[in-house]
Amino acid sequence: MAERKKRVLITGAAGRIGRELASRLHDRYELRLHFHRVVPDDLRHLEHVVGDVADYDSIAPAFEGMDAVVHLAADPRTFAPWESVLHANIIGTYNVFEAARQAGVRKIVFASTNHVMGMYDRDQQWPVYSHQPVRPDSLYGVSKAFGEALGRYYADRYGISVICLRIGWFLPGPTDEISRWMWLSPRDCAQVIWRAIETDLGFGIFYAISANSQRHWDITDTMEKLGYRPEDDAERYFASK
Amino acid sequence: MAERKKRVLITGAAGRIGRELASRLHDRYELRLHFHRVVPDDLRHLEHVVGDVADYDSIAPAFEGMDAVVHLAADPRTFAPWESVLHANIIGTYNVFEAARQAGVRKIVFASTNHVMGMYDRDQQWPVYSHQPVRPDSLYGVSKAFGEALGRYYADRYGISVICLRIGWFLPGPTDEISRWMWLSPRDCAQVIWRAIETDLGFGIFYAISANSQRHWDITDTMEKLGYRPEDDAERYFASK
Repeated sequence: MAERKKRVLITGAAGRIGRELASRLHDRYELRLHFHRVVPDDLRHLEHVVGDVADYDSIAPAFEGMDAVVHLAADPRTFAPWESVLHANIIGTYNVFEAARQAGVRKIVFASTNHVMGMYDRDQQWPVYSHQPVRPDSLYGVSKAFGEALGRYYADRYGISVICLRIGWFLPGPTDEISRWMWLSPRDCAQVIWRAIETDLGFGIFYAISANSQRHWDITDTMEKLGYRPEDDAERYFASK
Repeated sequence: MAERKKRVLITGAAGRIGRELASRLHDRYELRLHFHRVVPDDLRHLEHVVGDVADYDSIAPAFEGMDAVVHLAADPRTFAPWESVLHANIIGTYNVFEAARQAGVRKIVFASTNHVMGMYDRDQQWPVYSHQPVRPDSLYGVSKAFGEALGRYYADRYGISVICLRIGWFLPGPTDEISRWMWLSPRDCAQVIWRAIETDLGFGIFYAISANSQRHWDITDTMEKLGYRPEDDAERYFASK
C-alpha cells in the first residue's frame, strides 16, 4: 500500500516561488495553496484558500489537517515600508506560526532571506555563516530576522520542526554579476524545500542557493544537515549560453 | 567652563528601572522622562512627556534635542500575550528608533533581556555569550530579539550608536537561588547604562548583571568594551546578612 502523501499548505502561492512549487511539488505532496486576495486563473483548479495573513481568523481554517506549512507569504520588497513589513511579514508570520500550532501542524518551512545578513556584504566579509549574529540590511531583513527568532521559539517551546531557508535570488536563470553568486534555480529551490519538509531536524537556519562556484554564502550545512544536493551553478549556466 | 550635560530621554520612566535611573542619573545628565499614561506624583517636578510608544505621533516630539535615548518602555512580562508584545514592544520599539533617527539622536540604549537566550538555560548550557544565535523563551523574548535586530540595522544603516543591554533581574537585593546568578543591583544598573551612553562603540549586545560569583552569563565584553566595573555580587550580599 502506498504511503499517504503529506498534506502541505503553501502560503503566498501566487508569488513566483509559490507558483514554481505548485508545479514542481504536486506529485510529491497533496498541496493546498493560499492566496492573499486573487485566485490566479491558471491555479484555480488546485485546492486553495484565500485570506490575509495579517488577519488570523481569515487564515486559521487553512491549517486544519496539514502536515507541513511552507510559509512564503510576505511583502518581499527590500525597500518595503514599515507599515507593510509590520502587517505582512511580522503580524502575518506570527499568525501563520500560531495557526499552525493551533491546528497541530508539526513542520513549518519559513522563507527567510539573505537580507537578514545583508550588511556583512557591505564589508565584503565572506563567507557568511548562518550562526553569525544577524545584520539586516533593511526593515524587510529585520522582519525576517524576527521570523527566524519566532521560529526558534516555536521549535523550542512547542517541538514543531521549523526550518528557515535564507533564499538567495530565485530566477529562471542568472542574469548579472550579483546573480552569479546568489542564484537559486527553480529545481534547486523545489529540492531544498522538500528536503526541509522531510528532515527530522527540530530547527535550523540554512542558506538556500544553487551550487554557484562564486557563492558568498556557506551551504555546507544545507548539504550536510538537510541532504541538499544542488544541481545548478550559475557559472555552468553562463558557460552553456 | 563646564561641559554641557548630555540630554537623555528615558522611555518608560515610571517603571522600576526608570525610577532608579531618574534618581541616580539626574546629576550626570539632563533628563527627560517619558511616561505611558500617568505621571507619578513624586516625579512630576522633573521634565517629562506623556505618550503611547505604539502611537508614533504621540511620542515623536519627545525626541527633539536629545543626545541619547534609554529605551525601557515595554510590556516586561515574560508571559505577555502577543497583542501586548506587538504593540508595546515591537511597534513601540520601531517608533522609538524611528523617532530618534528623525530627531537626529545619535545614541540609543535598548533595554533587552536574558529572555532572548532563555532556552539555553533549559539545557543548562552555560555560559551564554551574546554572539550566540538567539533562543528566546517567550514572545517577550522574541520581541526583544526583534529590537536587537532593529538596533543593528539602525546602527549599520544610519550610524546611530545602539547599545543593547540584556538586563538580568533588577532588584534592590537578591532574594533567592535564581537571583544569585541573575541579579543586577541598582547602582550597577545605573553604571552600565551610563557606560552605554558614553561609549563610542557603534553597536553591541551586552549582558548587564552584577558581578555575581555564580553568574551564568558572560560579562567580559561588558567590562572590556563598555568599561563596566560592577560593584555588587549577590554572594557578598547574602554573606553580609
